[in-house]
Amino acid sequence: MRERAIVSGALVAAALVTGAVAHAASKRGAASVAVDAQVAALRRSALESDLALQLVTGLTTEIGPRPAGSPALQRAGEWASAAMQRLGLENVHTEPVVVPHWERGEGSGAIVAPWPQPMVLTALGGSVGTPEEGITADVVGFPTLEALQAAAPEQVRGRIVFLDRRMQRTRDEHGYAEDVGIRRDGPAVAGKLGARAVLIRSVATGPQRVAHTGMTRYGDAAPIPAAALAVQDADILARELASGQPVRFRLRLTARTLPDTDAVDVLGEVRGATRPDEIVLLGAHLDSWDLGTGAIDDGAGCAIVMAAAKLIAALPRRPDRTVRVVLFANEEFGLSGAHAYAKAHEAELPRHVLAVEADLGADPVWMMRGNASPAGIAFLRAVQRDLAPLGIEWRDERGAGGADLSPLVAAHVPVADLFQDASRYFDYHHSADDTLDKVDPKGLAQNVAAHAVLAWRAATSDVVLGPAPDVKR
Amino acid sequence: MRERAIVSGALVAAALVTGAVAHAASKRGAASVAVDAQVAALRRSALESDLALQLVTGLTTEIGPRPAGSPALQRAGEWASAAMQRLGLENVHTEPVVVPHWERGEGSGAIVAPWPQPMVLTALGGSVGTPEEGITADVVGFPTLEALQAAAPEQVRGRIVFLDRRMQRTRDEHGYAEDVGIRRDGPAVAGKLGARAVLIRSVATGPQRVAHTGMTRYGDAAPIPAAALAVQDADILARELASGQPVRFRLRLTARTLPDTDAVDVLGEVRGATRPDEIVLLGAHLDSWDLGTGAIDDGAGCAIVMAAAKLIAALPRRPDRTVRVVLFANEEFGLSGAHAYAKAHEAELPRHVLAVEADLGADPVWMMRGNASPAGIAFLRAVQRDLAPLGIEWRDERGAGGADLSPLVAAHVPVADLFQDASRYFDYHHSADDTLDKVDPKGLAQNVAAHAVLAWRAATSDVVLGPAPDVKR
Repeated sequence: MRERAIVSGALVAAALVTGAVAHAASKRGAASVAVDAQVAALRRSALESDLALQLVTGLTTEIGPRPAGSPALQRAGEWASAAMQRLGLENVHTEPVVVPHWERGEGSGAIVAPWPQPMVLTALGGSVGTPEEGITADVVGFPTLEALQAAAPEQVRGRIVFLDRRMQRTRDEHGYAEDVGIRRDGPAVAGKLGARAVLIRSVATGPQRVAHTGMTRYGDAAPIPAAALAVQDADILARELASGQPVRFRLRLTARTLPDTDAVDVLGEVRGATRPDEIVLLGAHLDSWDLGTGAIDDGAGCAIVMAAAKLIAALPRRPDRTVRVVLFANEEFGLSGAHAYAKAHEAELPRHVLAVEADLGADPVWMMRGNASPAGIAFLRAVQRDLAPLGIEWRDERGAGGADLSPLVAAHVPVADLFQDASRYFDYHHSADDTLDKVDPKGLAQNVAAHAVLAWRAATSDVVLGPAPDVKR
Repeated sequence: MRERAIVSGALVAAALVTGAVAHAASKRGAASVAVDAQVAALRRSALESDLALQLVTGLTTEIGPRPAGSPALQRAGEWASAAMQRLGLENVHTEPVVVPHWERGEGSGAIVAPWPQPMVLTALGGSVGTPEEGITADVVGFPTLEALQAAAPEQVRGRIVFLDRRMQRTRDEHGYAEDVGIRRDGPAVAGKLGARAVLIRSVATGPQRVAHTGMTRYGDAAPIPAAALAVQDADILARELASGQPVRFRLRLTARTLPDTDAVDVLGEVRGATRPDEIVLLGAHLDSWDLGTGAIDDGAGCAIVMAAAKLIAALPRRPDRTVRVVLFANEEFGLSGAHAYAKAHEAELPRHVLAVEADLGADPVWMMRGNASPAGIAFLRAVQRDLAPLGIEWRDERGAGGADLSPLVAAHVPVADLFQDASRYFDYHHSADDTLDKVDPKGLAQNVAAHAVLAWRAATSDVVLGPAPDVKR
């Protein structure tokens, strides 16, 4: 139904925009008419274009998995530079980033007693390995991170902790946000209580029997091996625990951390005609987890922002401000691409008019929100009217920006969130199932339209959107 | 929608059966009225019971994967015997079967050139392994088995053959039947043409990135290593081939065949009151592939036939003929359980009134067909009227019986097929994704109702359904 609405949106865009033009023109003056006409053209050309699909197909086929530290991530940097050149973006270049190099190695495990079964699992990102022979220990289960935090050390010491929290499917990210703590913090909490290892139920929805990885952080806790079970395997382990008999588990991980390596942020621009030093940033991240081909996380985002810039460049009128595409080197493993960008462009940050990151897949954008000055918010709300034909509503809540924008948000750069429908995103996220077939071509094109229109509006306005208020992350 | 129809079926069953009783009673005489009343009671109790769900939960939790040759299959025999005893079935016993013992070992592979990518794959059942260092060779793709058969040896010799046929999703099995040839016969055909190894696109539907295994047969061809790619990996390989550049692949399999081992068919009965020597057989198979927990293939079938027998045993009136549950030891790896049964019960086969096997998952039965004498077909069509409230239609085509019934079909034993809706079965079939969460409890209960009613009808009739005509398989 959503897809049909989008298609219809394209067809009726011309009709709708006439009214919008009349409305906006009275406020913005004659020059806006030309801007509004470009909006309609952008929206239409984006919905009709398969450029983003071609780009994400290329990245997932010619590069595939490209985790921080891998040769594939270096090849991805070359691929992205060449693609931007081919698209005719300007000032295409790379900027150096040092990235961590963690290697997953092999992971295996099995319930040993009372009823032996092999398990589908994978190491959490950053996990230490087990001894060569693995770890075999009794399992103690907790339904939440809070329950583990409340446990007495003698319940946990010498055991394998199983965190069995079930993620809820939601249209926005809140199901994920509520659940991700077991992955991010569970191993550190369990380690402090003396656990030998941690298993979590994958932070995921969906019927796929694949394990979903993602970063964990030990902080000042002694690191212990940590792995995610596929949801079906978490189900089996839970049923064995429910039998009341002691449950023994064998876990073996060969994960390890190697010396940091070199990677790059990749940048390309559509230079502004009259205020080229003012930047509208369209971001996404080039790295992916190693298990899938990084189609929805974040090949789609890379394709969306590159295609949006290309469509803006193809308009007869050049934007006033510069639209800058930034493909960050390393989102998944500690945001080093984002930090490198913020540091290299520190002096320029006050001239970052607006930043947007596409990093929630390729299903249609359904909601927009922002973090900006009051004038900036008013401007974004006006832009939402141009996005309404795409099925995008405004939500009156504080935007946070994508993870790679966090250093910019800290520097009070205004951000807007174009929220993709995340209902099925976490079926595939951080797993082997993050593959090209999960990208819906119509949803992807709608994303390009939304990002292109927003960037175009911000780059042809003289509104000052910043400084943005503090955001608590 | 289908599930709602079933639930409604249960609610209106009492009303519908009244008409059926009046109709049938006029033909079958007064004794049938009691039989018909039991039909309504059976249907209702089956739809309300969670017995089958308990059974398939137990089998997948306490045993899990149970391939031919594994210790788990031996434990499964003990589990099933104990379960039948607990259900109060009579004459519970096991019968010896010798089964093959093939071990999957490890499988890995990657595209080496032009664009390196790791691949998700698994060995086909019965495949030989590769040399320790693997096989690295250029890939030649064929869209169908027929195209490979038409190939010149010089196209194939020394290469890895890729069979890239895409399975269609269908409600019955025909999508599978059309596609399975690439798995069953592809390696033998490629071997005769001098190929070094074979890769197939998994014979599967669905968005899961898991590889789907299943038997291959080399016949008189020299065996070469054979593996199935997940459909997403087949997509990637196809895109690399479409680039026109030479594509090199590295395949490593440690699969091997070990000496045959011992297993058992497990039998239990509801003994007939007046004609105990006449047998209505309800079959399913106890073994599963090693990748999943064998929930839909064929834990569900085992649960369906055990629960159906239990519900028949719980009726106030005992059936005239004997209802015999047979859980065959080894369907997946060459039907040795079926052949052992047919041989051990050879003298008894002429008194097998009807045989039914549940081996197509747990989604609702939507269609019935049979293979029997003309009087037998007329009888089955009459039984279909008792199944119509469950949403089951009659189809006027020759029934084939489940695979384990093939030796019985060859001996002209009448069979009926209660066809489950197979639309999503092949998303999970023969893969790691064959797990308990794929069993829909309402569909499972409808299956129990259908199998119980059919067995009850056949076991309380004096109709002679055989001998059945020859079936070309």
